[in-house]
Formats: sequence, C-alpha cells, structure tokens
Amino acid sequence: MESEFIDWLRPRAPTSSAVLVGIGDDAALLDLPSQRCVVTSDMLMDGVDFVLDQVDPRRVGRKALAVNLSDLAAMAARPVAVIVSIAVPRHAPLSLPQSLYAGLIELAEEYQVALAGGDTNRWEHPLAISVTAIGEPTERGVLRRSGARPGDAIVVTGEFGGSILGRHFDFTPRVTEVLALHRRYELHAGIDVSDGLSLDLSRLAQESGCGAMIVPQAIPISPAAVQFALQRNDGSTPLDHALGDGEDFELILAVPADQAERLLAEQPFATRLTKIGEFVAEPGLWQVDAQGNRAVLLPRGYEH
Amino acid sequence: MESEFIDWLRPRAPTSSAVLVGIGDDAALLDLPSQRCVVTSDMLMDGVDFVLDQVDPRRVGRKALAVNLSDLAAMAARPVAVIVSIAVPRHAPLSLPQSLYAGLIELAEEYQVALAGGDTNRWEHPLAISVTAIGEPTERGVLRRSGARPGDAIVVTGEFGGSILGRHFDFTPRVTEVLALHRRYELHAGIDVSDGLSLDLSRLAQESGCGAMIVPQAIPISPAAVQFALQRNDGSTPLDHALGDGEDFELILAVPADQAERLLAEQPFATRLTKIGEFVAEPGLWQVDAQGNRAVLLPRGYEH
Repeated sequence: MESEFIDWLRPRAPTSSAVLVGIGDDAALLDLPSQRCVVTSDMLMDGVDFVLDQVDPRRVGRKALAVNLSDLAAMAARPVAVIVSIAVPRHAPLSLPQSLYAGLIELAEEYQVALAGGDTNRWEHPLAISVTAIGEPTERGVLRRSGARPGDAIVVTGEFGGSILGRHFDFTPRVTEVLALHRRYELHAGIDVSDGLSLDLSRLAQESGCGAMIVPQAIPISPAAVQFALQRNDGSTPLDHALGDGEDFELILAVPADQAERLLAEQPFATRLTKIGEFVAEPGLWQVDAQGNRAVLLPRGYEH
Repeated sequence: MESEFIDWLRPRAPTSSAVLVGIGDDAALLDLPSQRCVVTSDMLMDGVDFVLDQVDPRRVGRKALAVNLSDLAAMAARPVAVIVSIAVPRHAPLSLPQSLYAGLIELAEEYQVALAGGDTNRWEHPLAISVTAIGEPTERGVLRRSGARPGDAIVVTGEFGGSILGRHFDFTPRVTEVLALHRRYELHAGIDVSDGLSLDLSRLAQESGCGAMIVPQAIPISPAAVQFALQRNDGSTPLDHALGDGEDFELILAVPADQAERLLAEQPFATRLTKIGEFVAEPGLWQVDAQGNRAVLLPRGYEH
C-alpha cells in the first residue's frame, strides 16, 4: 500500500499501555496482564460478508472488528489489541481504506482496543479484510463450547433473526455483557451466534456431549425477523428466521439452573437475557411444544 | 468452508503445550512463557505474492507461514503459534486448501509452531491467505528497527537478489540464526528484507535516526541474481538485483563494531554472515567505492 496511507494511519491507530511496539516495526510487542491470551481471526470478503458498493466502508471496517470482538465475548475474554490485514482493489481511491479503518478505529476506541499492526496490500480483485483479535481471559478463565451440562439453562442475549436487514453491520458485540455475567454468575459454556441460533446451539451442545431442548415460543424474535419474513413472503415465519438466520452475534450461554434463575430475575443490564430452553442428556437438538411434546428440531443456518 | 475440510484439518494441526484451546472453539487460548508476546501478520494474494496456476499450493502455504516467521526473526522472537485465515475460490477442489495447509503445516512442524485457529471461507475470487504469527521475546528482549547507532556494522545473513526465480517460496526464515546471534552477541537493531536490501536498509536507518554506508562489492550476490540479470538482459547487473529485488527474507542487523568483528570471525553457523558497510551519522543511504569516494545510493525495491 502507498506509504501515504501508512502515514495517514499511524497517528490515528489507537494505542494503549499494552502495546510496547506498535505499527511501524516488523511486528508488534504486547505486554499482557498475564501469560494467557485468547486469539481469534475472521476474514470478511466483498460479496460474501458485505457488498461494498451498497454500503459505507466505515460499516465494513466496523463489522470486521465487531465479529472478532464477538468471538472474544463468546470466550468471556477482554479485548486488548487487534492486527488488521487488507487486500484493497488496485484502483480504489485511498478514501476506501481510510473509511474502512475509520469505522474500525471508532469501534476499537469504544472498547479500548489497540490497533497494533497489520499488513496493507493492493490487488486486482475485490476487498478482503482479515482481523486477528487478542484478548485476555479474566480471573475466572475462559468460557468454552464444551462446558454445558444437562440441566443447565440455555440463556441468550438480545433478539434473533433478520440481521441481514442491517444489524449484521451495526450489532453490539456482547463484550461488556459477558464480562459482567462471568463476574457475577457461574457460567458453564458459551458461543456466539454467527451462523444461526439453532445451528450454533447444536454446535455448543455437540462439543459439550449433550443435547439441547428449546421452547420455540420463548425465543426472542427481532422486529427485523418479522419484517424479513414479510419481505420474503415465501412461507417462512419470523420464528424460522430467528432460528436459522446467521449473523445475530448474540451469545448463547449454558447457565446452571439456580444461577440462571437469579440472573433472569436480576436482568443485570439493558440487554435482555432470555431462557429459551435447557440442555439435556440426549444428544441432538429438540423442541418442546405447549403440550409438552418433544420433537427433533433440524439445525438451520449458514454452513460455510 | 465445508465442515469436511475442518474435519480433515483438525487432527493434522500441529499443537503444543502452549495451546490450551485450539481449533474448534470461538477462539484459541494460549499459555505463553511470559506476559510479553510478539505479533505479526501478512496477507498473501494470488497474482501478487504467487501465481496459483504456476505453483504447487504447498509452496504457497509454506510461504504464507515463512514470511511471518521471517518477521518474528527480524524482532528476534521465538515463534509459538499461528492463526490462519483463507479465502478460497468457490469452485476449487478441496485438495487446494488441503495442499496449502500441508505445506504450511510441514514448516510449522519444523519450527515447532502450533496451528491454533483461523477462519476458512469460499468466495468467487482468487485465493487470499492471511497468517498471524505469535512469538515470544527472549530474555534479551526484542530487536527493533530503531536501535542502530553510527559506527555499528551492517551485517547481513545469506545472499541477495533473484529470489523471484524460486527462493521467494523456499527461503529459510532466519529464526534459528537470529536466536543464536541474539544469545551470543550484542545486537542493536534488525529488519528482514522483504522489499529489497537497499530499501529495507534505508528504512532501518531512518527509524534509527541515522544513515547507512554500504560497500557495494561486499554485498553477497546470489547465483540467482546473476542468472536473473542474464535473463532480463536489460542492462541491470547482478548487484542491481541484489540491492533492489524483493523477497530475499534475509536479515539486516546493526551490530556494535567489536561484536561484529567477533561474530564475523566466528561465523557461528552455516548461514553466511557478511559485513556490507556501517551505519553513519549522516541520514540517508550512501555507497563508498574502492577509492573511498562516497556517493548517494537511491534505495530501490518493492513499494507496496
């Protein structure tokens, strides 16, 4: 990339006391609060995760960071720093990477995440952006996918479905929420919903060696899911969209029953917490209707 | 990406005691030897860093890791783990990512680097691969670009030029070499040559607030530089290629004069160490001829 771009970026990159060496050397040097660190990476591509000529590039940059913060949230890790690599179309104006980074930096500042380095490139093809986020576990350790036990409540943050109408750019990664929950309650497992509520729930259950039974009418359905079902007009219901749409970036948590009761009564922050079912011994994904009848539920969502 | 691919990859990914949680969760959890870590990222793209239909994808995967190991080497950091994100053309067979990862894994095993996670995607465009490498500094700290002082010798590993003929895939990242040097000798600064010897040397000098004076006839010229000059037949000399070709991935080190003398006499390993000049107070890049006359040398290389 033009050195003009690096000169623009370097003074704008948020830094912190954790960054001993940042942009401008062969690598970054971080000073973390402990020897343990949590690392995740997501690559977003034009035509797959966004359509560049239909969206402000700031929202693309924001999303590229937000999806990684959501992964850290799923592990109950506090974000520390990010490394950002981009491939920019050869003839795009400098304002494209500038807008991208501006959107990313705005969110980074909100979460006090440093931009510690990366790689900027041009090529003849569409935009791709890869973000690696580094976080620190809290004293309570990380939240894994594998810790759910039969009898745990399935608790979710926020609402589901229809994220494609815009929320997949502007969602709030549940970092603050999960850190507050992890401090105050015992949590057994967590995952963020990137590919669909039912699909990601089934993954969490599978990694935990158990099953999940949901109460469909308990699922918090986003107004966007209602709107999207109307738009589609293909027979799919808002519930179908809540269960199967990707990119909600809400959290699914496995919470011991007594803890869940307290947490749901206390509702410790503005983001709604909802119990949508419980983990069960029988593997697989199940739904139970108002009459108490169980049926298999097929996981739906975005398979990469 | 197909879950079939993840199922193929998961048991093949090299792991280590540093990886407490690896592939398969929302993020990786690493246990590092200290609170400090070194992080770098490079993205390689079809048509820019390789031409996929002219090369075995294993060599592409190897290169994607090797360039990152070279960046860690430039900081004198020991590699610990990598995170790999790829965007694969929609209709490429599974053997493409499999070959890519096979080449990457082979080099990772050689350097005992764990593959801790990443992101695998398909899209309608050419292959892009982004690797983030995490390393640990040694007890002697990291080597920065900014530590060179006037009077320090400019010492380089290996030979320069003509890397485009093949070495840019098969080079040895100078990890073992720099760790041995950093332990035995006092080093002031380092950079790896990714964009061209003269360009990267001028960057190191600039970050150190000094200049660099080279003795052109001291520069170790690769046989490939000779061959490439013959092939090009455009008046460029092997020395021109040694000074200006990119992707040698050798190291330029700033070494105090007395330490350099000892190091050059001892030649502590098979990789040749050569003094090509010294850092000087006057900013800029200079060359000195056999008669002792100084002249400005224009840095040449690959500007991104």
